[in-house]
Amino acid sequence: MKIVTAEKILKANDQLAEENRTKFNNSGVFCVNVVGSPGAGKTTLLEALITELKGDVRAAVIEGDIAGSIDAERIEKLGVPVVQINTQGACHLDAAMIASATGSENLDEEAIDLLFIENVGNLVCTAGFDLGEHLRIIVLSTAEGDDKAVKYPAIFQGSDALVVTKCDMIGQTNFDVERIKADMKRLAPEGAVFEVAALTGQDVPALAGWLVGECAKAKTVA
Amino acid sequence: MKIVTAEKILKANDQLAEENRTKFNNSGVFCVNVVGSPGAGKTTLLEALITELKGDVRAAVIEGDIAGSIDAERIEKLGVPVVQINTQGACHLDAAMIASATGSENLDEEAIDLLFIENVGNLVCTAGFDLGEHLRIIVLSTAEGDDKAVKYPAIFQGSDALVVTKCDMIGQTNFDVERIKADMKRLAPEGAVFEVAALTGQDVPALAGWLVGECAKAKTVA
Repeated sequence: MKIVTAEKILKANDQLAEENRTKFNNSGVFCVNVVGSPGAGKTTLLEALITELKGDVRAAVIEGDIAGSIDAERIEKLGVPVVQINTQGACHLDAAMIASATGSENLDEEAIDLLFIENVGNLVCTAGFDLGEHLRIIVLSTAEGDDKAVKYPAIFQGSDALVVTKCDMIGQTNFDVERIKADMKRLAPEGAVFEVAALTGQDVPALAGWLVGECAKAKTVA
Repeated sequence: MKIVTAEKILKANDQLAEENRTKFNNSGVFCVNVVGSPGAGKTTLLEALITELKGDVRAAVIEGDIAGSIDAERIEKLGVPVVQINTQGACHLDAAMIASATGSENLDEEAIDLLFIENVGNLVCTAGFDLGEHLRIIVLSTAEGDDKAVKYPAIFQGSDALVVTKCDMIGQTNFDVERIKADMKRLAPEGAVFEVAALTGQDVPALAGWLVGECAKAKTVA
């Protein structure tokens, strides 16, 4: 595993994000930016998805964290390429960090179909930074409460799918799936919604199938 | 063109925070900054604490949110003074926002013993901004996972207490209280730790008692 430290941003983020996207398109890499609160279950969801997709899709992961490499170590156990970005205090990933990570020898873009980027756990700052992804997925756990779209609208607004996680715990919470679905419909009318329990597998095949479909669609367009 | 560096902004914030603290001391207000992820259970904890303290301590709340006033509406039902700050996109509260909120007619400092500030749900950006509080409490739910201190060390480092919430759900999680206690001891050796379930009342009286004690200590010193 390679640990890339965040470098100074030299170019405007959006321009660099477009360059990332062009690079991804040219090498046939479909890129998904996974955002959510700390503890929403992003890494556990990626573990379940990568396991589900194994054999069909060549996946890789970029892990973004303020400090440490706990998540990258978990992903590495699944036998897929992974790069850890340590932001050293920064509260979100940016396009320059992704450019630097994808340029590292650990990620051979020719050997990747689907690149997941797990962003820093943050419902606010991650919303403003395009990384060059094709899709952004917002992950929200039932334990966090169903009022999050009202409180943090921007991150829902720009997302292509909402994945409600920890649905196996919903009985212990007062989470109302219909409420968050209605908020998502208002903020992101085209957005898909999945009700997942990564540890039991609930809705994981549906989400994996949707990703594969979006991936194929993008390739047809490109 | 003028370039304002992050360092300068933080310095200006620190100075304003000191002014807030002096103002709080002069009017006998003890101020607690409550930080944590979105959905950690900060508002529910405040509801339980305010109910527990009723009659003994005159509490008030400043609610910080990107958008909306859901939390302030909940607090208002308890019959205590509350001011909602809408940061309009900003990912944390700062000392200037607090100065402006405490100057509003809704908060009469002469009639307040204990002022809670519920910060924006964010484990990263809130760590850098002193608001003029006397204590900072980090709230972490069992549903978020026990690895958060390793991933977001700064917010734990500067906190006076860790409140583990949703302990009534711990059986449905793989949360290891001993792990987070050990991390807290390493990052904030003087920090207190409470294992709370706000909805069932577990450890709420102990936390309330600790707050009253800290409040009394501060008044003896001032």
